[in-house]
Amino acid sequence: MEGDPTLRLRVFDLNCWAIRYLSKRRQERVRLIGEVLQREGFDLVLLQEVWSEQDYNDLKVKLGGYYPFSHYFRSGVIGSGLCIFSRFPILDTLLYQYSLNGYPYMLQHGDWFCGKSVGLVSVWNSASLLLGSHQLHAEYCREKDAYLPHRLVQAWELAQFIRHTSKAADVVLLGGDLNMHPEDVGIRLLRGWTGLRDAFAEATRFEVSGRGRAGCQGTPRASHQPRCLSQGCEDGCTLVPNNCFTDKSELLPFPLGIRIDYILYKAISSFMVKCEELKTTTGAVPGMDVPFSDHEAVMATLHIQRQGQAAGATLSTAEPMLADVVTEARTEVGVGLRVAQQQRYSSGRMAVLALLLLLLQAAAALGALAGLDAGQPFPKLSFCLLAFLAIGILLLATGLYLFHTMEVKMLQGTEEQMRMVLQALQERP
Amino acid sequence: MEGDPTLRLRVFDLNCWAIRYLSKRRQERVRLIGEVLQREGFDLVLLQEVWSEQDYNDLKVKLGGYYPFSHYFRSGVIGSGLCIFSRFPILDTLLYQYSLNGYPYMLQHGDWFCGKSVGLVSVWNSASLLLGSHQLHAEYCREKDAYLPHRLVQAWELAQFIRHTSKAADVVLLGGDLNMHPEDVGIRLLRGWTGLRDAFAEATRFEVSGRGRAGCQGTPRASHQPRCLSQGCEDGCTLVPNNCFTDKSELLPFPLGIRIDYILYKAISSFMVKCEELKTTTGAVPGMDVPFSDHEAVMATLHIQRQGQAAGATLSTAEPMLADVVTEARTEVGVGLRVAQQQRYSSGRMAVLALLLLLLQAAAALGALAGLDAGQPFPKLSFCLLAFLAIGILLLATGLYLFHTMEVKMLQGTEEQMRMVLQALQERP
Repeated sequence: MEGDPTLRLRVFDLNCWAIRYLSKRRQERVRLIGEVLQREGFDLVLLQEVWSEQDYNDLKVKLGGYYPFSHYFRSGVIGSGLCIFSRFPILDTLLYQYSLNGYPYMLQHGDWFCGKSVGLVSVWNSASLLLGSHQLHAEYCREKDAYLPHRLVQAWELAQFIRHTSKAADVVLLGGDLNMHPEDVGIRLLRGWTGLRDAFAEATRFEVSGRGRAGCQGTPRASHQPRCLSQGCEDGCTLVPNNCFTDKSELLPFPLGIRIDYILYKAISSFMVKCEELKTTTGAVPGMDVPFSDHEAVMATLHIQRQGQAAGATLSTAEPMLADVVTEARTEVGVGLRVAQQQRYSSGRMAVLALLLLLLQAAAALGALAGLDAGQPFPKLSFCLLAFLAIGILLLATGLYLFHTMEVKMLQGTEEQMRMVLQALQERP
Repeated sequence: MEGDPTLRLRVFDLNCWAIRYLSKRRQERVRLIGEVLQREGFDLVLLQEVWSEQDYNDLKVKLGGYYPFSHYFRSGVIGSGLCIFSRFPILDTLLYQYSLNGYPYMLQHGDWFCGKSVGLVSVWNSASLLLGSHQLHAEYCREKDAYLPHRLVQAWELAQFIRHTSKAADVVLLGGDLNMHPEDVGIRLLRGWTGLRDAFAEATRFEVSGRGRAGCQGTPRASHQPRCLSQGCEDGCTLVPNNCFTDKSELLPFPLGIRIDYILYKAISSFMVKCEELKTTTGAVPGMDVPFSDHEAVMATLHIQRQGQAAGATLSTAEPMLADVVTEARTEVGVGLRVAQQQRYSSGRMAVLALLLLLLQAAAALGALAGLDAGQPFPKLSFCLLAFLAIGILLLATGLYLFHTMEVKMLQGTEEQMRMVLQALQERP
C-alpha cells in the first residue's frame, strides 16, 4: 500500500455444513458455493465445516483461476473443516487446536472428533494481513448449556492466540462460526480482550442479499451499537427459520433467527479499517430450492486505509468493562471446573469399585482352585460375565478419569490466566 | 532500555526429572534446585519436568523473594511439567500443545500422557522479551527411532509457533530439553527456520561449573561452529555418564555424553544479543552425593544491546541450506506418514474382522434361538468368552484406527506446510 493508500477488501465467510454421508444435498451445495465464489470474485474466502478433503480439492480445482492461493487445515479425527481461498499469496500458516472441545463419549454431538481449531494464514497485499478461520464448540441446549465452560476456554484461547500472533500484523481479520450470540459472555470476552470489531455492528450499510432489500440502508451507525438488531429486524442472523435445513424447534424462541457467524477485524499498526458494507444470504439460493448451507453466508466489504498514527485505543478505553467480562467468564469457567472435578471423582470411584470387584473375583477363583469353597460354587458363565463386565467398567472408568483430569487441568489453567489478567487490569492506574 | 542501552541477562535452564513416586530423591533434589536458584540469583529460570504442582508451589514460596513472577503451564493428563520463574513481570502467557506426541498405548514411555508443549511468556524489562520453555518427545532408541516423525512434527510446530508469535518481540529466548543432538535434522530445522542461535555454539566463554575449569576459555569462537564439541571435549553435554541417574548403557556410544538441552536466542528488531558465557553443571552438586537431576543445567549470560539497524540477515543467508534441511525433514515425515497409514489400515482391518466375528456369532445365536441348530450347540461359556473377546478387539481396534487417522492427518498437514515452504524458498530469486 505504498503507492495506493487504500484497499477495498471483499470477504466471504460461510459454515458450509458439508459432512460426508450426513449433510443433505452436500455435493450440490458445494457446487453452488463454488459457482457463487467464482461469479462474485471475493478477495478472501473463509470456509468452515468442509469436512471432506475431496470437497476442498474440487473447490480448489474450480476456483484456481480466480483464487490461486488456498489452504486446508488438517486436524482431529475428521479434520478441522477449515479452509481459506485467497486472491493474495498465502505466506505462512499455523493451526491452533483448542485444548478442550467437548467429550469423546458424546458421540451424538461429535465435536470432540472434529479437532476444532483456529487456522491462521499470513497474507500479503502491500499491507500484512493476518487471517483466521475458526469454529467453536456447538451449543446444543441454550437453557442448560453443558459446553459453556469449554466454549469459554476456546474463546479465551482464541483471544490469546490472536493477541500473540497479531502483534506485527497491519490488519487482523477473523471469520467463522463462533456458536455464540452477540451478547454472550464468550463473544464479549473475545472482542474485549482482543479489541476486534464486529463487522455487522460497524457496517455503514447492511443488506440482505437475494431480496434486494437494504435494511437500515444509508443510516450511519455508531460503533458497538447494533441498532438493527435492537429494532427487531432479522439483519445479520446466520441461522434463520426460512432456511430449509435449520431445526425450526431450536429457533422457536428466536423468530427472526440468531447470529452466530461473524466477521471480526481490527487494525494494529498505522492502518484504519472500516466496514463499508455487510451482506448475508437468506435461505435458498435465488432461483434454486436449496440454500448454500444450514448457515447463512456473511459477506463484508472492508475499506483499509493507511493513516498517520497508530490506532490502539480500543482496549484501554474498554478496560473497566473488560474486567467485568473476564470476571463473568472466570465464574463460568469455575463452575465448569467444579463439574469436571466432580466427574473426575465419580469416574475414579467407579474405577476403584470395579477393581475391588475384580480382586474379589480373583480371590474367589483362587479359593475355588485351592479347593477352599465349602458351599455351592458360582456358575462359570455368570462368573465370567461378571469378570468381563468389571474389566469393561474398569477400562471405561479409567479412560474417563484420565479425560476429566485433562479437562480439570485445562480449566484450572484458563482460570489462572484469567486471574492474572484481572490482577493486571486492577493494578493499572 | 531507553536510558541504559545494554542489559546483562542470566538464564538458567534445567530438565528437573521430578516425577512423583518415580524419580529418585525427588524432594531432596527440588530443594537443592530451589537453594541454588535462590543463591545464584538468575534473571530468568526455565524448568521442565516439574510434573508435581506441589513441587512448583514449594519452589514458588521459596523463590518468591527473588523471583516475584512465575507461571506453571497446565496440560495433558499429567501436565506439561513446564514452569518459568522471572525477576521481571510476566505480562502474558500462551501454551501451545504439540499435535503429535507419541502413542497412548506405549505406556512404558508415557510421553503421550504428558501433553508436551511449548509455554510462552512475554516479559518486559525495557525491551520486550518472548520466552519459551519446551520439551519434545524423548528418543528411546537412536538406531531405530520410531518417534522421529513425531519429534520432527513437534520441531516444525515449535518453529512455526515461534515465527508467528515473535514478530513484534525485541528478543526471543527459548530454553528446554529438545531431545535432539545438535547435528540432528530436527534441531537444524528449528534453527534454520526460526533463525535462532545456539548459546553454546555462540558463547565467547564456556565453563564446566563446579570443576573450576574453563574449556576453551578466552578463545573467541566463530558463529555456528561448536569448536569445543568437534575437539572432543565434553563441553555442553547435558546427559553425561558421571551423573548417577543417567542410564550408562544408553550413553555407551557417547563416552563424553550428549547435548540435548539448549538455550537458543535471537534478536528480532533493532537489538543485538551475544552470549557472553555458558556454563553447565556436571554430575553431583558440589559437596553433595546427588545431582540436581538426570540432566545437567545450562546457564547462559546474555548481553542484549540496542543497535542502530534491525538485524534479520540470518534467515536469508542460510536459505539454500535451509531448503536442504526442510527437504530432509519432509522425507522423514513422509516415512512416518506411510507407517501411520499402514497402522491405520491394519487397525481398520482388525476392527472389520472383529465386527464380522461378532455378526457371525449373533447369527449363530439367533439361529439357536429359532431352533435351527441341527447339530451340537456351542458351549455357552466359550461362546460368551469369544463374544467378549471380539467386542474388546473391536473397541481397541476402532480406538487405534481413530488415533492413527489423527496421526495421518497431522503428518499430512506438516508435509503440506513443508512443501509450501520449499516452494516459496525455491521461487525466491
